Amino acid sequence: MAELKNDRFLRALLREPVDVTPVWMMRQAGRYLPEYKATRARAGDFLSLCKNRELACEVTLQPLERYDLDAAILFSDILTIPDAMGLGLYFEEGEGPRFRKVMRTEADVAALPIPDVASDLDYVMAAVTEIRSALGGRVPLIGFSGSPWTLATYMVEGGSSKDFRHIKQMMYATPEVLHELLDKLAQTVTAYLNEQIRSGAQAVQIFDTWGGVLSGPMYREFSLKYMSQIVSGLIREHEGRRVPVILFTKNGGQWLETMLEAGADALGLDWTTDLGDARRRVGGQVALQGNMDPSVLYAPPARIRAEVADLLARYGAGNGHVFNLGHGIHQFVDPEHAGVFIEAVHELSAKYHDEKA
Amino acid sequence: MAELKNDRFLRALLREPVDVTPVWMMRQAGRYLPEYKATRARAGDFLSLCKNRELACEVTLQPLERYDLDAAILFSDILTIPDAMGLGLYFEEGEGPRFRKVMRTEADVAALPIPDVASDLDYVMAAVTEIRSALGGRVPLIGFSGSPWTLATYMVEGGSSKDFRHIKQMMYATPEVLHELLDKLAQTVTAYLNEQIRSGAQAVQIFDTWGGVLSGPMYREFSLKYMSQIVSGLIREHEGRRVPVILFTKNGGQWLETMLEAGADALGLDWTTDLGDARRRVGGQVALQGNMDPSVLYAPPARIRAEVADLLARYGAGNGHVFNLGHGIHQFVDPEHAGVFIEAVHELSAKYHDEKA
Repeated sequence: MAELKNDRFLRALLREPVDVTPVWMMRQAGRYLPEYKATRARAGDFLSLCKNRELACEVTLQPLERYDLDAAILFSDILTIPDAMGLGLYFEEGEGPRFRKVMRTEADVAALPIPDVASDLDYVMAAVTEIRSALGGRVPLIGFSGSPWTLATYMVEGGSSKDFRHIKQMMYATPEVLHELLDKLAQTVTAYLNEQIRSGAQAVQIFDTWGGVLSGPMYREFSLKYMSQIVSGLIREHEGRRVPVILFTKNGGQWLETMLEAGADALGLDWTTDLGDARRRVGGQVALQGNMDPSVLYAPPARIRAEVADLLARYGAGNGHVFNLGHGIHQFVDPEHAGVFIEAVHELSAKYHDEKA
Repeated sequence: MAELKNDRFLRALLREPVDVTPVWMMRQAGRYLPEYKATRARAGDFLSLCKNRELACEVTLQPLERYDLDAAILFSDILTIPDAMGLGLYFEEGEGPRFRKVMRTEADVAALPIPDVASDLDYVMAAVTEIRSALGGRVPLIGFSGSPWTLATYMVEGGSSKDFRHIKQMMYATPEVLHELLDKLAQTVTAYLNEQIRSGAQAVQIFDTWGGVLSGPMYREFSLKYMSQIVSGLIREHEGRRVPVILFTKNGGQWLETMLEAGADALGLDWTTDLGDARRRVGGQVALQGNMDPSVLYAPPARIRAEVADLLARYGAGNGHVFNLGHGIHQFVDPEHAGVFIEAVHELSAKYHDEKA
């Protein structure tokens, strides 16, 4: 493996000194880039793009050609796991993901197989290997998975949801069935992320997109518990280096103290949480990743720079911050504005770091 | 006007002693009730139901016939104001609200008229009068409005939204245009709520359904500021009694301290916020309303009672709590379960109150 030339991202996740604050963008390989749309058109559809190692590698690297990003993230979908469990993932144009089979009963969950991630999700591992090799040590590669709770919402609802009716019915009426489902998912996610690490992922992020629709006690019981189980089963050192784990619960800003229990190296924040308060609340126990509203990228360049400056000031001097958006970049953002954002982070953050520290 | 026989709700909002914790449910006149569906079918469609004073009165009172609720809430829609401003509100089955005209430019906003609420929204005032009279002093009547920010999201997006693209573009790219729109809305909402109070509403609630999609500084500038402006313009005493104001920002649990600035009598909470923490954070400056996840009503009765007991214990002894769901009751809830919930609140809360206090 080629030596890592830029390890700011990994260092920041471990709260080690860096020269400037590292930055990447959730969904950085995405529809706001015309070159992404061109590759996707060649692939045919979204799933075919995920399943083609060369094309998945191509789109992963596209934002790195344009911008001075400090990390690459595997191009894939969070729903590969339920698909490998036989639920039949498909996408309807403009409708989001759908499953042919849904989990509603004890029998549904009992019959659900635990996939062999190395073989059933070999296309993901092939993409990881391909991307890692193509990166040639330029920046680290992030692997990822959806959280068990988040995956379960899609599997029980059959797709996206507004009110999470079926999974909440299951949670309150037959919690033991949901726990069985979540346990199967936690086992699978652990194996999946470990296989990504063995294939070349140098950090991993768990996306808990829907943990924030729960109450505090339910979040702990149905989402955080299983993420903690995953974190404790992960390979934490590989190729002689720590493999940091980032845990991101969207709308989870009220529970940061509780999230520390999971044992992750870093917590991701959406833009509703004050970055300075969050830093005080986690008391140096973890790094923080985030948290600009992706909609700021609709603003004129001067305003984008001002927002970056404001967030850097809120975090303050010292280590342990990875700059990111608080959610995925929107498809209608001007790619030039993303460039302004990334440049601003590097330029304006230098004064908060002292490499000799 | 008939004398008020049950004033627990008003007393709790003012942090005065009560015998048991008062309870009502957001969207209590709604589709989970077969009698509501029957009346709505007679009305033809949702807007016709809102605009017919007798039928609006009928559905407002339906849940009070079934349950021992401590308040009635005007049956209406939050989008009556933009409709009165000429945007042409309509509903597409299963699609939510839509507007024929949207606000996107400075010219759109400049041309937007400020309605005369007494005449342009006379059907709302007629419903308030009718309901108040039909209640005969049984329980107090709550009037309501959407917050300026929340109304603006629908007016700029043209309906419901997932990512609030257009209004956030406006917020970051041409904030002065959005401020002009919000100012017009704040003026209108103030007049609208005052007219409801003059017509018989004994408390008012401002629904800020979408304030929680903002960052803290943006929430303060684009949502809270205008709610504060409204609160300071409201009639606070009428018929010799204080008219309490409740401010409810969904997903606003991180900003409770800031919300105190608005000068409301009570803050509404969704279920993601811990009720005990919230009480400590507001330090007796306001009452709190909430905050059971409406999905708990899918649970068996014993579990519903356990959740009520848990929330009452989190709030603890003393005044200043109005029990409610953290959002509107879901349409698929069994009406019997709503009954279990309401009974449990009264029965299990007695021990936390001392009427002689």
